[in-house]
Amino acid sequence: MIQTILLKNRPKGSPTHSDFEFVKEDTTLTPKEGEILLDTVYVSVDPYLRGRMSDAKSYAAPFELNKPIYSGVVAKVTASKNDNFKEGEFVMGMLDWKTQQISSGKGLMKVDGEKAPLSAYLGVLGMTGLTAYLGLTQIGKPKAGETLIVSGAAGAVGSVVGQIAKNLGLKVIGIAGTDEKVELLKSKFGFDSGINYNTTEDIKADIAKAAPNGIDIYFDNVGGSISDAVLFNINQFARIINCGAISVYNNTELPKSISVQPFLVKNSALMQGFIVSDFEEKFPEAMQQLAEWLAAGKLAYSETVVEGFENIPQAFMDLFEGKNTGKMVVKI
Amino acid sequence: MIQTILLKNRPKGSPTHSDFEFVKEDTTLTPKEGEILLDTVYVSVDPYLRGRMSDAKSYAAPFELNKPIYSGVVAKVTASKNDNFKEGEFVMGMLDWKTQQISSGKGLMKVDGEKAPLSAYLGVLGMTGLTAYLGLTQIGKPKAGETLIVSGAAGAVGSVVGQIAKNLGLKVIGIAGTDEKVELLKSKFGFDSGINYNTTEDIKADIAKAAPNGIDIYFDNVGGSISDAVLFNINQFARIINCGAISVYNNTELPKSISVQPFLVKNSALMQGFIVSDFEEKFPEAMQQLAEWLAAGKLAYSETVVEGFENIPQAFMDLFEGKNTGKMVVKI
Repeated sequence: MIQTILLKNRPKGSPTHSDFEFVKEDTTLTPKEGEILLDTVYVSVDPYLRGRMSDAKSYAAPFELNKPIYSGVVAKVTASKNDNFKEGEFVMGMLDWKTQQISSGKGLMKVDGEKAPLSAYLGVLGMTGLTAYLGLTQIGKPKAGETLIVSGAAGAVGSVVGQIAKNLGLKVIGIAGTDEKVELLKSKFGFDSGINYNTTEDIKADIAKAAPNGIDIYFDNVGGSISDAVLFNINQFARIINCGAISVYNNTELPKSISVQPFLVKNSALMQGFIVSDFEEKFPEAMQQLAEWLAAGKLAYSETVVEGFENIPQAFMDLFEGKNTGKMVVKI
Repeated sequence: MIQTILLKNRPKGSPTHSDFEFVKEDTTLTPKEGEILLDTVYVSVDPYLRGRMSDAKSYAAPFELNKPIYSGVVAKVTASKNDNFKEGEFVMGMLDWKTQQISSGKGLMKVDGEKAPLSAYLGVLGMTGLTAYLGLTQIGKPKAGETLIVSGAAGAVGSVVGQIAKNLGLKVIGIAGTDEKVELLKSKFGFDSGINYNTTEDIKADIAKAAPNGIDIYFDNVGGSISDAVLFNINQFARIINCGAISVYNNTELPKSISVQPFLVKNSALMQGFIVSDFEEKFPEAMQQLAEWLAAGKLAYSETVVEGFENIPQAFMDLFEGKNTGKMVVKI
């Protein structure tokens, strides 16, 4: 029995269960020459997938209706007719939301469960870690002694951004949505301070208090009113890294904010959007650095692990409610 | 008789005559050893001065209340006790809004009225030209064959930006506020096309039509709703140069726009503010290139010349009504 999740409808606003369709096929897959058979072990759910579910112009082609959704997946090779892969090995790559599938092996990377937990290859050692490291270093150009603030700070990318910045000698402030998350930023991830955007009475003032020398780098995962508040506190030559805008992804009307242009002009400041694949040629050196820090105990990470293939849509929807701490993965 | 214009009040919203005070002094100035006496010839009025009239945090110190306002000025040396300057020479620099003043000569550059009209040193060969050239080349990084759009296109900076882009092999679209200005963009400045933002029924659609391959570079002088419309038409890796935001400078409430973050994220696009002095070390090569193009007839310019010291405040206020075409200067 093979299960697959298709995109049934393009979500209007927040995704709902009716946007997904489960299909069961009572069939047996057998790899042909050059192919491998994969059993799905971990599925990554990420905010950026929301963008691919709509058909607006974007950096990546949208998912097709009535076709499988795909994302980062760790899978086990359970049969191989490809000399590059052996039965029992694990791989990571962009794969369909299926319990089992055939692959040519193209685009898959072997991963070693003895060097790091398998799920880490979807997180701190995968796209999440690369996004944090490359966005911060390539756009943010951090210098020791500067002050960085990150929104979505307890999320998969945010928590890694803050730790990398600490490793590089910056002062680090995190913005998150619960007191528990704010506490975790300090106790587990070594942030200098944290702000709970849900309970603060004046977020602009709280940022100013946490950053008496102003903000040099803002790693922005959320957009919206939190990002507006940061703008009031940026320094001359500030760099704002637009990694995501989760706070507005489910908006059905065009979101409005304060005009950023006057802030950028008067501070000679930069804002830049990116997707991790923009920096593909830097992946090897970034992976190397992340693995070194992980081995040296300088990169902690959190995961929210949901069990069961049938719970993938719910786990994805929970991202927009901030129910995850760190990387959200589904274990099959 | 020496006349001076002081900043009387910090303008609330649009500046008015009551924000300026004229002072007349019946005195004779005599330079001491090392000093020169200057008679003002041309005064530059520029949108950025509005920022210095308020006391909000910015890249430059605000003007002081009840002190002279200052801006770019061309003046004639009418007496000299400084070996570096001779009577009869002309200089350019940041000088007070006075009919006559004493200077140590520091920060002044000699200008030659035979090589170019004196007023050009406040425009195409001065800060205006440098702003256009350095913003475009340092942030925009233009490549032949790309498409550039510029707002405030018939203004002092915008008209030079478009011509430089044409000289560099780009396709150039200008946005301006009257049919006469749009006509001038094409007939005098060689733009490929122009859009009148006051008469268009759908500016987004008009931009899309003028730029069938999308926008690679947006040189933004205005901010506000015009800039919102451009965002819908940007390409992957687009560069947006935030030179000014004249459309919102006189707002008393915080201006709102659409959220730019999702556009930057999905296009891996960049927005960067600047002030020309950020690139001071590039001034000599930029001046050289601008003078070459001017001499070769590859850089036309327009001026709006207002006559009379007493008309400086009105000329400044007229900038915000778009009454100038090209550089606005006051001849004393």
